[in-house]
Amino acid sequence: MAQNIYDNPDFFSGYSQLPRQVHGLAGAPEWPALRAMFPDMAGRRAIDLGCGLGWVSRWLRDNGAKTVLGIDLSETMITRARQTTTDPAIEYRIADLETIELAEAAFDFAFSSLTLHYVSDFARLARTIYRTLTAGSHFVFSIEHPIFMAAGHPHWTVDDHGRKTWPVNRYAIEGERRTDWFAKDVLKYHRRIATTLTTLIQAGFTIEAVDEFAPSAEQIREKPALEEELERPMMLLVSARQ
Amino acid sequence: MAQNIYDNPDFFSGYSQLPRQVHGLAGAPEWPALRAMFPDMAGRRAIDLGCGLGWVSRWLRDNGAKTVLGIDLSETMITRARQTTTDPAIEYRIADLETIELAEAAFDFAFSSLTLHYVSDFARLARTIYRTLTAGSHFVFSIEHPIFMAAGHPHWTVDDHGRKTWPVNRYAIEGERRTDWFAKDVLKYHRRIATTLTTLIQAGFTIEAVDEFAPSAEQIREKPALEEELERPMMLLVSARQ
Repeated sequence: MAQNIYDNPDFFSGYSQLPRQVHGLAGAPEWPALRAMFPDMAGRRAIDLGCGLGWVSRWLRDNGAKTVLGIDLSETMITRARQTTTDPAIEYRIADLETIELAEAAFDFAFSSLTLHYVSDFARLARTIYRTLTAGSHFVFSIEHPIFMAAGHPHWTVDDHGRKTWPVNRYAIEGERRTDWFAKDVLKYHRRIATTLTTLIQAGFTIEAVDEFAPSAEQIREKPALEEELERPMMLLVSARQ
Repeated sequence: MAQNIYDNPDFFSGYSQLPRQVHGLAGAPEWPALRAMFPDMAGRRAIDLGCGLGWVSRWLRDNGAKTVLGIDLSETMITRARQTTTDPAIEYRIADLETIELAEAAFDFAFSSLTLHYVSDFARLARTIYRTLTAGSHFVFSIEHPIFMAAGHPHWTVDDHGRKTWPVNRYAIEGERRTDWFAKDVLKYHRRIATTLTTLIQAGFTIEAVDEFAPSAEQIREKPALEEELERPMMLLVSARQ
């Protein structure tokens, strides 16, 4: 079973103060780039893998999805997500992406935000998602960028010329990474970009678009702290077609 | 016109001592991974963009290609390449990849090794290659990995824990990079991985495989200096299909 930090009260009290938890999609600077990868949602049966508090699940429904299934490992998150809606077309369910089973051709859109780097067996999950999508449907997701999470001790440094610099090491050494992030020893799985893309292709997907979040000039004007995200790739965004 | 460092005698005297120039493909540790992306060469008309001394051009012919056209900007390289063969099915030609024109459906395989990061207008070149390939043909190439070339002053450092570390900055700031490599101010063009892949997709290609060179345990046993390439991604390898 995947590590479940989100039901750790210490973790959750910190995590739930993040801008993207307090402000929802408006607090997620990569959201415009991610949303740009979506097909027209009208009439689609959507699945949101690692739905958290359900911000995207509700957006999908508000933007035309016929039904939305939000999946999360965390009882805390699913309980809160359920409190935000009475819409019978949105279902929130507790499940583990390491072992989840999904019916064949049951969905017309799959989405996942900043969750798949917690999954150890991505190849299994990619095959599961491929099978549960109808022909031509899209799987759009974001993950922490492998350059962001590769290093043993990732934190900003400064180079000889005074420029803010992100350290990279252990890039080709895939597997567990443990970091302290609102809790000690948060467990993630590092995979190279090549591995993520090749795993999707081998599961049968066609790569439709790849993006690496970088703040726009307007985003930096509104929130100057984002400027440092020009220095390193923080998130990888992918659109793959069944 | 692209910068032509290869005809600078100072540059060339250093460059021509590199293992991959002296020993050919045996001196290029990424070659096994790149070759694994090739289709069966039998009967194909191949083009080698940035052919240098022609090591791959000759390999393609030796492995079944019907004809091979090797293109390079450098007169020094093309002159030396021509001296290595009398095979009339291999042609070496001087041309600039920034402005090259190629006939429609004239080739059944396109290859490029560590050259495209010298090209400013990759979108134009990708469209040119797409048009010159026959339906279903492959374009396989390696480039310096954008993580390898992003930083303003790229060189190994050591992190707080003593681990060899590669610095990343300016990743989202695409464009010119000038480094000293056998000559001063060698000009390269940095593009994010997302940009390279999206440019190919927008030109019409399907991404077939992506790899990031990492030495195998056997390669490290044979040449221990390669071990540091586990820490950073040095080269990006791509196979795209027309």
